[in-house]
Amino acid sequence: MNNTPSSDSARLDAILDRVHSFVDAELVPLEGLLLAGDFDALIPAMEEKRAQVRDLGLWNPHLSSDHGGLGLGLDGFGRVSEALGRSPLGHYAFNCQAPDAGNMELLLTHADGRQRGLFLEPLLRGDVRSCFGMTEPEHAGSNPTVMSTTARREGDDWVLDGHKWFTTAFDGAAFCIVMAVTDPDAENRYARASMVIVPTDADGVQHVRKLPVMGAEGAGWFSHSEIRLTGVRVPAENLLGPRGGGFLLAQERLGPGRIHHCMRWLGICERAFDLMCDYAGSRELAPGRSLATREMVQTWIAESRAEIDAARLYVLDTARRIAEADSIVEGQKAARVQVSAIKFFVAGVLQRVLDRALQTHGGLGMLDDTPIAFWARHERAARIYDGPDEVHKSVVAREELKARGYSIKR
Amino acid sequence: MNNTPSSDSARLDAILDRVHSFVDAELVPLEGLLLAGDFDALIPAMEEKRAQVRDLGLWNPHLSSDHGGLGLGLDGFGRVSEALGRSPLGHYAFNCQAPDAGNMELLLTHADGRQRGLFLEPLLRGDVRSCFGMTEPEHAGSNPTVMSTTARREGDDWVLDGHKWFTTAFDGAAFCIVMAVTDPDAENRYARASMVIVPTDADGVQHVRKLPVMGAEGAGWFSHSEIRLTGVRVPAENLLGPRGGGFLLAQERLGPGRIHHCMRWLGICERAFDLMCDYAGSRELAPGRSLATREMVQTWIAESRAEIDAARLYVLDTARRIAEADSIVEGQKAARVQVSAIKFFVAGVLQRVLDRALQTHGGLGMLDDTPIAFWARHERAARIYDGPDEVHKSVVAREELKARGYSIKR
Amino acid sequence: MNNTPSSDSARLDAILDRVHSFVDAELVPLEGLLLAGDFDALIPAMEEKRAQVRDLGLWNPHLSSDHGGLGLGLDGFGRVSEALGRSPLGHYAFNCQAPDAGNMELLLTHADGRQRGLFLEPLLRGDVRSCFGMTEPEHAGSNPTVMSTTARREGDDWVLDGHKWFTTAFDGAAFCIVMAVTDPDAENRYARASMVIVPTDADGVQHVRKLPVMGAEGAGWFSHSEIRLTGVRVPAENLLGPRGGGFLLAQERLGPGRIHHCMRWLGICERAFDLMCDYAGSRELAPGRSLATREMVQTWIAESRAEIDAARLYVLDTARRIAEADSIVEGQKAARVQVSAIKFFVAGVLQRVLDRALQTHGGLGMLDDTPIAFWARHERAARIYDGPDEVHKSVVAREELKARGYSIKR
Amino acid sequence: MNNTPSSDSARLDAILDRVHSFVDAELVPLEGLLLAGDFDALIPAMEEKRAQVRDLGLWNPHLSSDHGGLGLGLDGFGRVSEALGRSPLGHYAFNCQAPDAGNMELLLTHADGRQRGLFLEPLLRGDVRSCFGMTEPEHAGSNPTVMSTTARREGDDWVLDGHKWFTTAFDGAAFCIVMAVTDPDAENRYARASMVIVPTDADGVQHVRKLPVMGAEGAGWFSHSEIRLTGVRVPAENLLGPRGGGFLLAQERLGPGRIHHCMRWLGICERAFDLMCDYAGSRELAPGRSLATREMVQTWIAESRAEIDAARLYVLDTARRIAEADSIVEGQKAARVQVSAIKFFVAGVLQRVLDRALQTHGGLGMLDDTPIAFWARHERAARIYDGPDEVHKSVVAREELKARGYSIKR
Repeated sequence: MNNTPSSDSARLDAILDRVHSFVDAELVPLEGLLLAGDFDALIPAMEEKRAQVRDLGLWNPHLSSDHGGLGLGLDGFGRVSEALGRSPLGHYAFNCQAPDAGNMELLLTHADGRQRGLFLEPLLRGDVRSCFGMTEPEHAGSNPTVMSTTARREGDDWVLDGHKWFTTAFDGAAFCIVMAVTDPDAENRYARASMVIVPTDADGVQHVRKLPVMGAEGAGWFSHSEIRLTGVRVPAENLLGPRGGGFLLAQERLGPGRIHHCMRWLGICERAFDLMCDYAGSRELAPGRSLATREMVQTWIAESRAEIDAARLYVLDTARRIAEADSIVEGQKAARVQVSAIKFFVAGVLQRVLDRALQTHGGLGMLDDTPIAFWARHERAARIYDGPDEVHKSVVAREELKARGYSIKR
Repeated sequence: MNNTPSSDSARLDAILDRVHSFVDAELVPLEGLLLAGDFDALIPAMEEKRAQVRDLGLWNPHLSSDHGGLGLGLDGFGRVSEALGRSPLGHYAFNCQAPDAGNMELLLTHADGRQRGLFLEPLLRGDVRSCFGMTEPEHAGSNPTVMSTTARREGDDWVLDGHKWFTTAFDGAAFCIVMAVTDPDAENRYARASMVIVPTDADGVQHVRKLPVMGAEGAGWFSHSEIRLTGVRVPAENLLGPRGGGFLLAQERLGPGRIHHCMRWLGICERAFDLMCDYAGSRELAPGRSLATREMVQTWIAESRAEIDAARLYVLDTARRIAEADSIVEGQKAARVQVSAIKFFVAGVLQRVLDRALQTHGGLGMLDDTPIAFWARHERAARIYDGPDEVHKSVVAREELKARGYSIKR
Repeated sequence: MNNTPSSDSARLDAILDRVHSFVDAELVPLEGLLLAGDFDALIPAMEEKRAQVRDLGLWNPHLSSDHGGLGLGLDGFGRVSEALGRSPLGHYAFNCQAPDAGNMELLLTHADGRQRGLFLEPLLRGDVRSCFGMTEPEHAGSNPTVMSTTARREGDDWVLDGHKWFTTAFDGAAFCIVMAVTDPDAENRYARASMVIVPTDADGVQHVRKLPVMGAEGAGWFSHSEIRLTGVRVPAENLLGPRGGGFLLAQERLGPGRIHHCMRWLGICERAFDLMCDYAGSRELAPGRSLATREMVQTWIAESRAEIDAARLYVLDTARRIAEADSIVEGQKAARVQVSAIKFFVAGVLQRVLDRALQTHGGLGMLDDTPIAFWARHERAARIYDGPDEVHKSVVAREELKARGYSIKR
Repeated sequence: MNNTPSSDSARLDAILDRVHSFVDAELVPLEGLLLAGDFDALIPAMEEKRAQVRDLGLWNPHLSSDHGGLGLGLDGFGRVSEALGRSPLGHYAFNCQAPDAGNMELLLTHADGRQRGLFLEPLLRGDVRSCFGMTEPEHAGSNPTVMSTTARREGDDWVLDGHKWFTTAFDGAAFCIVMAVTDPDAENRYARASMVIVPTDADGVQHVRKLPVMGAEGAGWFSHSEIRLTGVRVPAENLLGPRGGGFLLAQERLGPGRIHHCMRWLGICERAFDLMCDYAGSRELAPGRSLATREMVQTWIAESRAEIDAARLYVLDTARRIAEADSIVEGQKAARVQVSAIKFFVAGVLQRVLDRALQTHGGLGMLDDTPIAFWARHERAARIYDGPDEVHKSVVAREELKARGYSIKR
């Protein structure tokens, strides 16, 4: 697998410098539009930035060079993801936003020629966006095998019925990769579901609502939708990967997706850390005495520094373990415990760092003069999506116990 | 002072029952409008509810019976405030919302006849709303004596210049009680500021913006504004209380205001607790196995129960200590440490309870299907406004040390 | 039940003053002997102090005046227990140490005339000590109904076989109240065990060892033993209370015992708090700048003050709820949730306050120059004995859920 | 500098295996003697083990191969230190216990020929032990430049007067490296002290007492002493390193010493983690239902796993940063922030892991059946010695602020 050999580290450093500069110079100035919810102004402005990124040769940094990406490997891209995470606009500008980046990986591995032409290529070019339909309001997200959405074969078509929510970026997406039960009677409950590509303009696809997440519906790639599928008919060849292979494919997405998320969170942490230090250093409590002279603020700075740095090493170590294996599937297996552990560990760091940065800013921290309040509310979900803390902790514990010969059922 | 004698406890229980029922039956159904930010629909609906409250004889529950209130004393009203706090619409429906309730108390104690007629009476009737202009963006809120807004005497007028923010409920208010420096050369730095009543339609009063707090500007009594005063001229008789007495008056507001806030937060906690229990008890993880079977959820429920109950007793004990003194000023003095301690103690309980309730709800917790997410974002400010945790902790520690003979300067 | 009417509060205050003075003047100077483990010197010294307490009329403060106690009720004695808790020598000096105080309550309620003469009266006089045999090494303490010790009836005797540990104060005790299974086939698993009074010098009672708790075996009333009972024969009339009533009797002990424990812990907290303030105020970091100027130390002081005060109100409120009921059994029932909640809540406060006080003292905190290190190691058990935190949290949660109609099995 | 090239990693793994096996097979069985304080039996038993370690070629694992050590570099030895840390007997068995290991490093770098022969060589052979006299009871350890011990030059001698405590392993040591003020008038307050080698049998060296740390005085290398130096006379050539260079030398010790400490703590964590998993997995709550089925225990296991692993990566990264520099002094400078950050970060992990492991064991956790209680009490000092958490947090914060242009005085 393509890990970053140490000889490539100079190249990586150069890329990180360029990404960092681009984020600061080009994206941070646009954040106000996002924070104010002014998507009418933001969307065209972002298209310009995306063009600049293409011109700079930094487009699709998550992909291997074969596919027109930067070929940085899992840990190298992790570092880029951290740099991009410093702004809520970073990943989209570079075409590696969730859930498109994950969908590209799925399609790269599993799409046939027709699917590549129809779905993958426009995505790689950034001409369209996509989404991923997994979570259902009727079922606890913590047990993904309990699912009501079905796809049944009728002639040359799949006919889908179901109800999904937290479908990120449905608004404006060209297609949705839908997880649906195709083989309800399979003995192995992990072999019942498949992934089906559903164009969003297909008959029977209903956009119920954009969900008001922390009071904001957002728009486009910054929104989460509730959708209903009623007798939606797509051609049989829209099946992605093998029939019944939905969970296996989802599993593959997991490790790399986890690394991307965690590194993005650490980018948020670093930005919040910078804002906290700068505000503390420059805000005067009295002439010549800054907020940074307060020991409690110093404590927050120090604890944040330590937690962020330890977390980064932990995530990058996980990335290396995955990358060192002979295949992604093997890598996931080898790093299974750590892939769960970084999820709750880094989400915890993220929440604490944001809380300290907000508190340091006082009343200003509640406003949108910085992105801290935006993250404090929206990234609260980091402890929930992609498996709540509690589920990941049980996974880690059961694995550790199993390795010692104690088998604990869920 | 008017404390609740134990013989009144049956009357209090009956009032609490009626308030509780009203909140559940009449106000909870309107919360969706608030959460969706639909103030055009909410404001007239709330006026109807206010009329109902008047008809029920529950109007102005915070006031003594002399002034048309319920005469419950500080701890009795504290219990009512908790019951009202269960909905973000509670206090306004009963005309005891911040900052009007505090302004009424100020005016009741210090307004002369003209001021009572012009400002207090419309407020008591609920015909107008008011606001309070204290915090300035240029100065750390933790040191209130550093203030740039001035009122200088010119003939029969006060002429005000200044810049305030986090002026709650300015939008639509009839007048603002402004804290301004009138005596910059007074030796005692606590004797430099006065309170001046400024009609919001006076020339020179500029509404700069409603502040986007946690991404939402709100409206009316659910908004916080930035304002500028430029050569604003009001009659000399708009001075409230003695010249140079601004801090003394603000100090008086403090203890009772703190009790009201803390009890309101406990009302929020109780509602969040109910929602957490009900969701945990009814959400199925698998047939016959509810979310409440998870030990971590049980831990959250138990810790919340203990923290809320201990906090309530602590606040009510503080209320009794204030009320037992011969005067509010003496009461504040006697309860000085506790008045600071309950602020950070209860704000901490509030944040933890909301966080647990949100996590219990999973993705749903991020949405506005319950008021949890609304509170999680807006009541994050509880650890900041009215003095950040860190300031109150220093106050408590210095008082404890002083009582043992160790004088610690700030 | 005998609650403290408010007219008695002056008497209580006077008693508290006397107890407080006695602890400071007479017991604190002896603490060094305990901390050094010099029981040979400590034990006779303590007998002198016990004689003084008798002379002062403060003996058996936990008992009603009918039984020669101070008649303070559950909350009044709670306050005394707090005052005694300031020294690890307090309770023994006043003859209200665990487990004797609880055994006296059991015997007062359930002993027949013979048992009173043989066991209770010497205990009340302080001529002997006793112990209570409950926990067994083979079974998790969190489920008391699983128990291996048996007492089988043979003629006019009970014959006991079993293995107990954490039998506090066995060393030197005259008798042990042993919980043993007498009716293994009873359908109700709470009706299988009985309490049997076993003289410690009976044949077959083996003192296996004093347990090395946190590295120290202690002696006398400051020790915990492992014991074995092998064919121990006691007269049938040594059964305490009804056959099969063991759990019911244990249950009765629970509420008052919990109040005593929690109030004792708060006494420890107050002493540690005083030590922390005094050390911080007097230890110089540099000329004129004491340790108390450090904001982190101030934070610890403030958080401790708030937590202790809230905890005390919570425990006393629980005491009142128990005392207001028509009987102890009813009181326990009424206060069931709180009796569990105060256990983990106050144990948590205790651990945090001791940790802060120790850290404030730096290296000195690790030494026996103060009792902080002694408590930090021995009171770590507060979160374990008498039910670990986790069990009590489950109890509280299940009760809260049950009150809302959700029945959660353990 | 001698970092571990990746080609050496197989050798390191083999060494770690051997160390791990030796600890489990040879040292763990002796722990009971330590826990029971039976030094008379322990000391000769340990001498046998030390002989075995010499025979196995694992002696002095911290030293470079030039000096008869294993030549593993800072991070390689860090891993060995972790493996040794699994038992409180590990480091002494391998002759790399504190403070001897640090003293060896000092002497290797700064001792002249005579000093090597007299002091270093017996230490390397394990024929004698040594100690280090730094901390004084009269001064806060957090500001090491305030020191009262003096060494004044009289003819060919240094004459020392002073008072030290927490002098680890003084009991039985052959010599003490004493930090003393030799140049009280030096302008640079960091150039006032020097290191002087003082034989413990010199006239005027008084062993005041072994300190009762957490109730135990210990003995030999498991003890901490208070000592007085009164007119102690040693030859001028006992000065170690340059006059006035005491702090510089102490500084050099710091980084590597910190790595050793932190890795040792992680060894403790791993052992406690194993004990926690094994107890949870094997202790039955009811037939077929182990303690490990409790979600709270799972949470403790998972959080511990994540914290330990992240902490290890953080410490090893710090080791590499130090080792990659051109010199130890440069390395320390480069890693200055991390060297402070790992101290409080890992000490925090240590305390939490021990607390969870103890709580998992219930009452058993309070006993010496496992080393958990021993560590819980003695390693509480980890947050204090070598600079309390609070000092390190201030260091980290001030460095971070300085890097951003904000200079904060202490």
